[in-house]
Amino acid sequence: MDEWFRILDVAAVDTPALVVYPARVHANLAQLVARIDDVARLRPHIKTHKTPAAVRLTLAAGITKFKCATVAEAELLGQCAVPDALLAYQPVGPKAVRFLALMAAYPATRFSCLVDHPAAAAQLSALATAAGQTVRVFIDLNVGMNRSGIAPAAAGALYQQCAALPGLAVVGLHAYDGHIHDEDLAVRTARCHAAFAPVAALVAQLRGAGLAPVVVAGGTPTFPIHAARPGVECSPGTFIYWDGGYGRAFAEQPFEPAALVLGRVVSLPDATKLCLDIGHKAVASESPLDKRLTFLNAPELRVVGHSEEHLVVEAGPGHGYQLGDVLYGLPHHICPTVALYERALVIENQRVAGEWPTLARARALTL
Amino acid sequence: MDEWFRILDVAAVDTPALVVYPARVHANLAQLVARIDDVARLRPHIKTHKTPAAVRLTLAAGITKFKCATVAEAELLGQCAVPDALLAYQPVGPKAVRFLALMAAYPATRFSCLVDHPAAAAQLSALATAAGQTVRVFIDLNVGMNRSGIAPAAAGALYQQCAALPGLAVVGLHAYDGHIHDEDLAVRTARCHAAFAPVAALVAQLRGAGLAPVVVAGGTPTFPIHAARPGVECSPGTFIYWDGGYGRAFAEQPFEPAALVLGRVVSLPDATKLCLDIGHKAVASESPLDKRLTFLNAPELRVVGHSEEHLVVEAGPGHGYQLGDVLYGLPHHICPTVALYERALVIENQRVAGEWPTLARARALTL
Repeated sequence: MDEWFRILDVAAVDTPALVVYPARVHANLAQLVARIDDVARLRPHIKTHKTPAAVRLTLAAGITKFKCATVAEAELLGQCAVPDALLAYQPVGPKAVRFLALMAAYPATRFSCLVDHPAAAAQLSALATAAGQTVRVFIDLNVGMNRSGIAPAAAGALYQQCAALPGLAVVGLHAYDGHIHDEDLAVRTARCHAAFAPVAALVAQLRGAGLAPVVVAGGTPTFPIHAARPGVECSPGTFIYWDGGYGRAFAEQPFEPAALVLGRVVSLPDATKLCLDIGHKAVASESPLDKRLTFLNAPELRVVGHSEEHLVVEAGPGHGYQLGDVLYGLPHHICPTVALYERALVIENQRVAGEWPTLARARALTL
Repeated sequence: MDEWFRILDVAAVDTPALVVYPARVHANLAQLVARIDDVARLRPHIKTHKTPAAVRLTLAAGITKFKCATVAEAELLGQCAVPDALLAYQPVGPKAVRFLALMAAYPATRFSCLVDHPAAAAQLSALATAAGQTVRVFIDLNVGMNRSGIAPAAAGALYQQCAALPGLAVVGLHAYDGHIHDEDLAVRTARCHAAFAPVAALVAQLRGAGLAPVVVAGGTPTFPIHAARPGVECSPGTFIYWDGGYGRAFAEQPFEPAALVLGRVVSLPDATKLCLDIGHKAVASESPLDKRLTFLNAPELRVVGHSEEHLVVEAGPGHGYQLGDVLYGLPHHICPTVALYERALVIENQRVAGEWPTLARARALTL
């Protein structure tokens, strides 16, 4: 059997189930490390997996810096005692209080967070001063995604303002360019360079003022481009499990699917349709219906309906599928799919060998 | 302050957060009971809330029968010792094994499940016989949704087949008409009656054979129609929390929103846009972008972008919103939204008064 995804003891696995293949996770990490001059320039995002086991594999690959999006993910990193963790989010209101508590609870990890506004900086400064702590911050730049961040032209002033605030230590700049996902690598590269130009100008300006900003840039789509940019830290996330959407869009990248959703045929509503148990509570569904998932062992199945616990697919006349048949689903978007499962089953040597808890899918761990 | 949703101690609530208002849950249950001649005809679906507290409020309203979609939801019902629980799903493969284990573990609850195929019936029969148990089944009918179920014309034979199998007890018929959701109640009523006609014919046929099938029909959209149909059990789900989608589509129904998602402004990426912390990991997103949620205290905000932890909205020029402002979001679809949270904060007298764990969002509890 040469199909890498087949699970020999799948008859005992209830579905829907998230499964991960650690050998492939390991290979994806090795590919990542091989594609940059210095492992110290890697700061992968853990939102894709949210699990301690993948953090430990990442550490084992020589990577010491991590990025995350929630306080729960940051606490997971603290529990794993990683050396360096960036909360790539501006903590506002009670989240800032939680972030300070996190820093106190996990002193072995050097935490930092984003800031893009003087009001957020002022709150962090006040909390840090009251707690006798120093909060390390990156200035979040809006490089064209228009999601968060300050315009690079205005960021120099905020950088200096933060540097002058008690309790804050400005580490550098954060430039996430998630709006750049052209399939054509040449187009993507050109757009990425254009978006980065004002960041480079800002770095030069800050260096001229005697500062030494660290720059954290990009996600998985622009990883190869920033990896070739001397000195910049790179923050890919999806690479670790890969998925159908990225596989189709970024064929130049060497990563391979390492997590799937298993489903079964649970009904045969008419002569050509199958009903599977992969509802939109079981696979990320923010994309259109035809982009929810594909099946490695049944590529001809076409999604025609989706509800909370059911997926209806067109199989065509005389399809031969039977009740109970197992389908190996490759999600279009793996990151929010993982968050739908409290655990992933671990597949080693084509058998279930344990499980990885999706610990940081919770909104809060202990803090 | 006359806005029912306002939370006085919201400054301490980190976001995104799911909040429930038990007084409104109670009122929705009372409205449901008031709209049917006999409370014994109610079999509400718990997929919307997945939490023991709402099950207990339902029991307190005099309702003794429940419907659910997963083994974890069924186990939650067993843990609550409800008298009667229908797993509205055909258990296939290892799920059938789990279902039998559930029956053995919670003898105080009378469980049943769906069957729409002889192969599934045969597996259940074999498992039940081996365990010395009897599995109560409803024949699942395809009344036009083409998602699961057997054609009513073929169901009489399956009914009789199941009745003859050792270890099976056929209770009745399940007719879910979730494809009928016309806003116009007259149109919805006509379509519901047309879809039910073959079910009525099947019931007459089975009665002619000396059988007395129970019929479980409909969801929230067709609840008022089946409630007026003598003897039929009704299975609304969404009514308990209600949501933006149902509120707009089914204005004739008396239910009121009882659960919201709280978010905050976390960035101001340009002069007219706000970034909120309600990503598609925080609100159900199987619908188009403009149908993800609306804001009770900011109805003018229009969604323009959505990613895993961020929601970008257009607020218009001179909007006046500031970092940290709290938004009260009414999800378009509350059921899968609830499943994104490990707990809901309970709001009583406009203050946080506890929490309801979303216990059955897990794929498995103990079984």
